[in-house]
Amino acid sequence: MISHLSPLELTRVVTAALDEDLGRGDITTEACVPPSVAGHCAFRARTELVVAGGALIVEVFRQVDVALSVRELVLDGTRLPPGGVIARVLGPAASILKGERVALNFVQRLCGVATLTRRYVDALPSGARTRITDTRKTTPGLRALERRAVRAGGGHNHRNDLSSAVLIKDNHVAAAGGVAEAIRRCRELAPHTSRIECEVDSLEQLDQALLAGADVVLLDNFDDTMVERAVAINDGRALLEASGGITLDRVARLATLGVDVISVGALTHSAQAADIGLDWEP
Amino acid sequence: MISHLSPLELTRVVTAALDEDLGRGDITTEACVPPSVAGHCAFRARTELVVAGGALIVEVFRQVDVALSVRELVLDGTRLPPGGVIARVLGPAASILKGERVALNFVQRLCGVATLTRRYVDALPSGARTRITDTRKTTPGLRALERRAVRAGGGHNHRNDLSSAVLIKDNHVAAAGGVAEAIRRCRELAPHTSRIECEVDSLEQLDQALLAGADVVLLDNFDDTMVERAVAINDGRALLEASGGITLDRVARLATLGVDVISVGALTHSAQAADIGLDWEP
Amino acid sequence: MISHLSPLELTRVVTAALDEDLGRGDITTEACVPPSVAGHCAFRARTELVVAGGALIVEVFRQVDVALSVRELVLDGTRLPPGGVIARVLGPAASILKGERVALNFVQRLCGVATLTRRYVDALPSGARTRITDTRKTTPGLRALERRAVRAGGGHNHRNDLSSAVLIKDNHVAAAGGVAEAIRRCRELAPHTSRIECEVDSLEQLDQALLAGADVVLLDNFDDTMVERAVAINDGRALLEASGGITLDRVARLATLGVDVISVGALTHSAQAADIGLDWEP
Amino acid sequence: MISHLSPLELTRVVTAALDEDLGRGDITTEACVPPSVAGHCAFRARTELVVAGGALIVEVFRQVDVALSVRELVLDGTRLPPGGVIARVLGPAASILKGERVALNFVQRLCGVATLTRRYVDALPSGARTRITDTRKTTPGLRALERRAVRAGGGHNHRNDLSSAVLIKDNHVAAAGGVAEAIRRCRELAPHTSRIECEVDSLEQLDQALLAGADVVLLDNFDDTMVERAVAINDGRALLEASGGITLDRVARLATLGVDVISVGALTHSAQAADIGLDWEP
Amino acid sequence: MISHLSPLELTRVVTAALDEDLGRGDITTEACVPPSVAGHCAFRARTELVVAGGALIVEVFRQVDVALSVRELVLDGTRLPPGGVIARVLGPAASILKGERVALNFVQRLCGVATLTRRYVDALPSGARTRITDTRKTTPGLRALERRAVRAGGGHNHRNDLSSAVLIKDNHVAAAGGVAEAIRRCRELAPHTSRIECEVDSLEQLDQALLAGADVVLLDNFDDTMVERAVAINDGRALLEASGGITLDRVARLATLGVDVISVGALTHSAQAADIGLDWEP
Amino acid sequence: MISHLSPLELTRVVTAALDEDLGRGDITTEACVPPSVAGHCAFRARTELVVAGGALIVEVFRQVDVALSVRELVLDGTRLPPGGVIARVLGPAASILKGERVALNFVQRLCGVATLTRRYVDALPSGARTRITDTRKTTPGLRALERRAVRAGGGHNHRNDLSSAVLIKDNHVAAAGGVAEAIRRCRELAPHTSRIECEVDSLEQLDQALLAGADVVLLDNFDDTMVERAVAINDGRALLEASGGITLDRVARLATLGVDVISVGALTHSAQAADIGLDWEP
Repeated sequence: MISHLSPLELTRVVTAALDEDLGRGDITTEACVPPSVAGHCAFRARTELVVAGGALIVEVFRQVDVALSVRELVLDGTRLPPGGVIARVLGPAASILKGERVALNFVQRLCGVATLTRRYVDALPSGARTRITDTRKTTPGLRALERRAVRAGGGHNHRNDLSSAVLIKDNHVAAAGGVAEAIRRCRELAPHTSRIECEVDSLEQLDQALLAGADVVLLDNFDDTMVERAVAINDGRALLEASGGITLDRVARLATLGVDVISVGALTHSAQAADIGLDWEP
Repeated sequence: MISHLSPLELTRVVTAALDEDLGRGDITTEACVPPSVAGHCAFRARTELVVAGGALIVEVFRQVDVALSVRELVLDGTRLPPGGVIARVLGPAASILKGERVALNFVQRLCGVATLTRRYVDALPSGARTRITDTRKTTPGLRALERRAVRAGGGHNHRNDLSSAVLIKDNHVAAAGGVAEAIRRCRELAPHTSRIECEVDSLEQLDQALLAGADVVLLDNFDDTMVERAVAINDGRALLEASGGITLDRVARLATLGVDVISVGALTHSAQAADIGLDWEP
Repeated sequence: MISHLSPLELTRVVTAALDEDLGRGDITTEACVPPSVAGHCAFRARTELVVAGGALIVEVFRQVDVALSVRELVLDGTRLPPGGVIARVLGPAASILKGERVALNFVQRLCGVATLTRRYVDALPSGARTRITDTRKTTPGLRALERRAVRAGGGHNHRNDLSSAVLIKDNHVAAAGGVAEAIRRCRELAPHTSRIECEVDSLEQLDQALLAGADVVLLDNFDDTMVERAVAINDGRALLEASGGITLDRVARLATLGVDVISVGALTHSAQAADIGLDWEP
Repeated sequence: MISHLSPLELTRVVTAALDEDLGRGDITTEACVPPSVAGHCAFRARTELVVAGGALIVEVFRQVDVALSVRELVLDGTRLPPGGVIARVLGPAASILKGERVALNFVQRLCGVATLTRRYVDALPSGARTRITDTRKTTPGLRALERRAVRAGGGHNHRNDLSSAVLIKDNHVAAAGGVAEAIRRCRELAPHTSRIECEVDSLEQLDQALLAGADVVLLDNFDDTMVERAVAINDGRALLEASGGITLDRVARLATLGVDVISVGALTHSAQAADIGLDWEP
Repeated sequence: MISHLSPLELTRVVTAALDEDLGRGDITTEACVPPSVAGHCAFRARTELVVAGGALIVEVFRQVDVALSVRELVLDGTRLPPGGVIARVLGPAASILKGERVALNFVQRLCGVATLTRRYVDALPSGARTRITDTRKTTPGLRALERRAVRAGGGHNHRNDLSSAVLIKDNHVAAAGGVAEAIRRCRELAPHTSRIECEVDSLEQLDQALLAGADVVLLDNFDDTMVERAVAINDGRALLEASGGITLDRVARLATLGVDVISVGALTHSAQAADIGLDWEP
Repeated sequence: MISHLSPLELTRVVTAALDEDLGRGDITTEACVPPSVAGHCAFRARTELVVAGGALIVEVFRQVDVALSVRELVLDGTRLPPGGVIARVLGPAASILKGERVALNFVQRLCGVATLTRRYVDALPSGARTRITDTRKTTPGLRALERRAVRAGGGHNHRNDLSSAVLIKDNHVAAAGGVAEAIRRCRELAPHTSRIECEVDSLEQLDQALLAGADVVLLDNFDDTMVERAVAINDGRALLEASGGITLDRVARLATLGVDVISVGALTHSAQAADIGLDWEP
């Protein structure tokens, strides 16, 4: 379902990673493993996880050696139990050895992001319309991949980058001379296809933002009481996004209070690598 | 002390990260913040941490706008208490806003690596000669930076990449037809400036590796008893490296048992982003 | 006013253009013009025009030779009469000669876009809230520059690219099985910061799109009568965008009928190069 | 006949254009069009035109998805009537949608250049040996493609770039201290495979250039009377090139007067995009 | 045997070389040779040589035209008599013509390096364990290829680059305040997989280096008498490398004296291009 | 005099060379040399030579560290006696150490080319109008630099690349169906700024080429007798170029016989590195 990855971007990020790890070539493998030796191995979950980044496995081994083939690749978004196979790789053993670490580094990180996202999404009350989104707190160089992983975990994406949507923060408000003026200027400059989102840190600012026609309001570090009042004040006019130090145990409550979006930096900046092994099979 | 960073690599990794985050330009800031507005802000630790990646702050803001200046940058390796300032940035507020997220994404990650490394290094007994090292389990695209961060935290680096040193694993042994033959082939191919490291998973293999003249032996997932016997068998011939699921509370024991190197994948693959804020000052 | 250009992108597009035109170096100039000869010249409008792309002049000459200086550069968006000076360049004559053609190729094209846009914008009735926008029909490789030029001419931008906003066309509707389902799917996938735009070619489709909650509706090749009915049917619910073979003399009528946006492919795909000369001065 | 395009350059210019338009991926198509839906469409001339840039269609769709195939591609240089098909594309509809705009942007521009060139070439008297050439007034980044398009339209190319031939202009003459000295210096520096071309703006300068052995003389903004005298003075010694504001209705006269080359900046800087549509077929 | 070349690096170096030689396309071949004309030719040694760089032939023609095929490519390291065939190329003659010069430029240089290396290696006494190595005196941009060629000639490689091993020279010693301190600092910083090499220019320095635990000692410009004494002093503790103006006729003596490594800058900086022709066959 | 080097190309070739040699950083220097230690050294000729590539010294050290300064750089083309200083470098010693090898690799090669070229040029009889040129037999990636070095040595350049001039060889003649037809086709396709050169291997072919209007004729492997007859037959109509295994002792004779151009592949493919040292000064 989450299978469309830009081939151009995929190619580049994998080329850079292989350059970084292969350097001038794998001298150990060159010395020990003749090209004629075949190998077969499986990427296997060591703990329960949600799969993301399968396309990276394919691309890494494609770039290392076109004689390799990747089989039984499960779809991104699949939940695997411990021992579940993400993909199998067949072909020259020397070539598998050259690519395995890079492939693992990618999928461990991306499965880690997807699995953590899934925990947040699963924490939502059944039937909730609230979405869990990422933020711009992604690993430099891997944003597109991590955003895919968030979607593989059932989450949604926030804006791509600074150019693709408006998000007015306190410094913008200060420089523009007020919430209303900041919104007006952004509305004027931004494409008509963009919504205008404004961050607020008080109910007074929420009022101003709603009056000025903000399409989305980010409630920055609001406690539950303030969120409840914000939902009431908003009364369905703008989308409301809760953000700032969101923990897993607060997700259900926020959704029940009625926010539309919960954005969680931890999905990408603090996900731990998933435990995935490469098992060689006879 | 850890101040030498390749300017070429630094330039490229920052350019890529800015491209990724700026896209076609920051429309919110362009709309709201005139170029004439000056700003001043500080990167401030929210919890105790070890600094790494300071050069990234400098490079990010240099690329965004040469009119920005970075001041009071503390050296990589410095321990900061909560509230400690890593660096200050002065100049056009619009330019600070365009670069702040990228700068934070870098330093939060790198300080996270340095801080975690410091915990492992501090766990060594006083006076121990054992070194804590990273592995190749780094973030794709950020290896050089993460390795610097490990050193900022008091750790050491393992080999750069597959071309810069030999590390013989089970598949290499199997393909070469034995530990001795694998070591012989690698010795023949590798530059004479490289040591030959061989991974073993039993004391029998350790014997073979030592007989074959391995310079370094990696003890893969050895428990304390086996480590103790390995140190005795080795009797100072090769360097011994303990690896595989090393936890913080095992570090002191391993050092006391006499291993030379403890390599820890978690330093890079599971470090959490350090909590660092950007405070705007009047 | 339109002065924020991404320095990274600017650098790259200019480097590519200089490579293309300089090849292995300007042999005529090398043969004839000693480095010690100074020169001074002016970029001068030969006909009335609106300035765009001034930053390209600066960047071209900066890359050719840091000893050159650009002076009296007028702001993008300025209207100049015939004979008006866009910028002056001073420094080694040989270096000016190497960069002049590339600089002219850029500014002639970009001023051409800005000037044509200005004509469309000036055709709007006084006080109209309708905006004139570009489309994705830009010159391959120059989109960011041409979008800036549209804004210099008083126009607005449509979405950056396929990833930054949703625009549902007939093929999407067909594949999704209807307007409502297409809108539902896009709403689900797109960031909550994006509006959902849907193209329609009949009033029936307009009804469907409005019912399904489209934020923007593109009226594809609607004649004036249909536009009038569309505005009435819409009754302020969605933004309405007129598109498809828009000519200059239809702009005022469309605005009066009440559309919010008029998108004009010709702004970028059919603008003629503005007539600008480089005059050498004693 | 015009089928040899450098695959390296083609790859790069298309990659850059797709990056620019796809950004992080086509969210509308991803949301609406499953990968299993097949599509078939035709690039069709809406008005009479000369085809150029067919190789771009092939390359764009190859990069987007190797599962796409391009069929019935007509050769560059073919004249098509309104309704004529340039090429057909078959394969996953989602992939066609992702590439169509970029492919159209390229071929509309290049067919525009070829078609305009054809008009100039057709304006030459029957049997004339005069050639119509382009200039360096090309779109930054697209020069190689536009030069091919000029040839597809029956025109010829002027020099590639500043390094591939000598063209002495007034500033070069001034710096060198005269026409004769400028020619001497260029002759000395340039490869012996290059002709030496010199621009003149008077009959006196023409005399000097011929005396100094110029191989080609560019008559800058000469009116018909001056051209006639120049041809007589030259008496077959050098090639004569007419340049400067050449309009279509002057071409026949210039050829009849006997100039060898007519160079026309408008071929590339002012060609309008050809009207080409993408028709989806059942 | 020497068949593992990084495909990523190979691709890039060949792309750059083809760009450099093809420029905007081979106009002579385009004018004269229709795509339908087939060709067949052989790369043939004109004098005795050792083959290196065969993979470059494959890559050059793959990039020029996928319709070309390379046949009967001999392995790197093969000794060929005059007239011996390195490889054959079949396919469109026009495409062979476009790639032949670049392919020749690569293999002539690389076979030159391999052949010269072979002469040094063959000069070693039978059964000697001394290795002949290259240095960092390689052609900028071609280091990886030249190092492969050295191995094809029976030589070994020195360190890849400044980051992959330690080599302490006089300036390092001076800055550190002595041989022992320099070695200590490098030991502390370098990965435990690296040996520490130290250059010495006297027997006193050799003593210091050995005492400080250098793993390898480079004897800089030692004459035979000094080498003999160095071997005696060393007594098997460190590897000894002779370097500095090594000529072919000194190799046997140095090996007999017992040095482990002889490094020869001339292998790469002064190898002459091997004489290889491209013979077209009917 | 030979001071104009394209800054773009220079930047790239130096960046690539530094990447190749620095890898992840110079660990020896980082360990031993504190940033505060200043150094001063001189690039000094060890034998008589002609200088070329001085700009590379400047660019290498500029990229390594902007705190370095290059002084007393002599002009390309200067003849230096043994001991002559090419340039001095001052600044942080650590930075000099990081760049010295790359700078030496460039200038040794380029001075080697210039010095060898000078020997060929000096072999011409006094007052001869014959020029010595390079060929396309250059080092992949370094063509522009080597061509500059040839000019620094008093030689001239042949065509840049396959796109910048026509050179018809036997395969072109065969495919076109004869010398005259090949020349006609090339004349038609090539820009009017290019001369048409045709290679011949007999006096009969020379006749055909002259009749067909070749501007330059390459006499392939003609002995002196044939050259003499060729000059007589030509009688000043075309430029004559002697090529094929030209040795130094044949240059004077060929010039006296009256050829216009002698092209020598050895200038670039077989020049030995000039002997240049880097002397550290107190």
